[in-house]
Amino acid sequence: VTLHELQLLRPALSTHLVPSGEAAKAPAVVERLWSELEIGRDGWIVGFGGGSTTDVAGFVAATHLRGVRWVAVPTTLVGMVDAAIGGKTGINTAEGKNLVGAFHFPQQVFVDPSFLATLPDEERQAGMAEVVKTGLLAGSELWELPEVEMIRACAAFKASVVLADPYEREGRRTILNLGHTFAHALEAGSGYELRHGDAVALGLLAALRLSGRSTDVVEELLAPEPVRADRDRAWQALLRDKKGELNLVLLGDEGGYLSPVPEADVRRALDELIAD
Amino acid sequence: VTLHELQLLRPALSTHLVPSGEAAKAPAVVERLWSELEIGRDGWIVGFGGGSTTDVAGFVAATHLRGVRWVAVPTTLVGMVDAAIGGKTGINTAEGKNLVGAFHFPQQVFVDPSFLATLPDEERQAGMAEVVKTGLLAGSELWELPEVEMIRACAAFKASVVLADPYEREGRRTILNLGHTFAHALEAGSGYELRHGDAVALGLLAALRLSGRSTDVVEELLAPEPVRADRDRAWQALLRDKKGELNLVLLGDEGGYLSPVPEADVRRALDELIAD
Repeated sequence: VTLHELQLLRPALSTHLVPSGEAAKAPAVVERLWSELEIGRDGWIVGFGGGSTTDVAGFVAATHLRGVRWVAVPTTLVGMVDAAIGGKTGINTAEGKNLVGAFHFPQQVFVDPSFLATLPDEERQAGMAEVVKTGLLAGSELWELPEVEMIRACAAFKASVVLADPYEREGRRTILNLGHTFAHALEAGSGYELRHGDAVALGLLAALRLSGRSTDVVEELLAPEPVRADRDRAWQALLRDKKGELNLVLLGDEGGYLSPVPEADVRRALDELIAD
Repeated sequence: VTLHELQLLRPALSTHLVPSGEAAKAPAVVERLWSELEIGRDGWIVGFGGGSTTDVAGFVAATHLRGVRWVAVPTTLVGMVDAAIGGKTGINTAEGKNLVGAFHFPQQVFVDPSFLATLPDEERQAGMAEVVKTGLLAGSELWELPEVEMIRACAAFKASVVLADPYEREGRRTILNLGHTFAHALEAGSGYELRHGDAVALGLLAALRLSGRSTDVVEELLAPEPVRADRDRAWQALLRDKKGELNLVLLGDEGGYLSPVPEADVRRALDELIAD
């Protein structure tokens, strides 16, 4: 299905464009969408695009008329295996990414891998970082599967974890953050110049090192290179909201688990990801 | 409890002021609060003030970090008997009131009638419109009770209706809108110059007339007078989101119920509320 076909199917569909990438996740974009929408409580929103687009579409669906139903149609690999699944919607503010948002589960997520035919290589690589993360957590080399099965397996794994802890209240959902504490810190330390996929690849390296496990898969499939970033800024971002003991998601034989890690070890692992 | 006492009790409390009245319920205020808040997911927000303040505080609680817990401390009669109860949070946009919002239930609602000692008469009158509405729906002259019992009875009635249909999906909660379709139309038709309590008093008149019931109580307690408003603008506002058949909340012997009403009758009832 293409956007054009959607419009042919549903002539009443109104379309609202958002900027590509993270620029979609801005308060000003949300305010514009709030103003443009004319649907009632029985209306639906279709989030059609990459992870940023479905994030903002879902957040607008959560807040328009105190919540309307929505459908996600991810068109990128990262959207299909991660971003569009699990009901986390959100936008960015000057203070940080995804600090504003809501849990608002889509009624359906339509995954059509034919969108990937035109996906740029760097976008595919960004998605592969989440595929590798998912495979590590699932204890299965999901990245070896043919594309369609790989996507299905990643989406299914994420959905199963989310269903066990939909609102991330019990810690079980938190394992999906494997490597992401470092990734977010690197993104902040680079002034958000670093692409999310590259940051996640580096974050996985650090998480595997702290877990005492081989990093071969990450090196082979994602080939992460240390990046330029402000070390102090990255460290401050990591400490934020982690007052006192640092609890990180590590990888064990049974999958991901939360564990306290000494601050010096975390700092060292972060520093290794940053180029001089 | 006063705001000052709250600060003494909880030195870590950070306070964030919002404009009084509907001006609090603006996207710009929400954006500022999103930026100012530094609490984590285990933090709480206390909405302390009138209905507009608790509405915006609750909405920010719904959307900060995908939802944090909050407590409502209403300081006006309308807040204590209506606005702070039931989990509806929201803000206004140029397109209309409460078109943006979320259902996000407070952990607690602290009602301290001693706040009412300094409440201006016109604010008390605005609250009495909701008290009369509640009494009509409850089939009991709640307005005759001593103030503290009156507040408790109104809050309890609203809470019981909300609990039967928290997300307004089954129509049962909708009965709380008795008179409010007309009130919202009059507010729009007056360019939002009309105070909500006055609009609700007039809306109750129209709803009782269409229900074929006496309007004596409303006339005696609220003494509503027809107001200046743009008739067409009010009518268009009323039709908005009511495509096709007009379903209104009417009052019967068993309480409120939803019923289709012929368009011409609705229009006539609305016109009677507007002064030439």
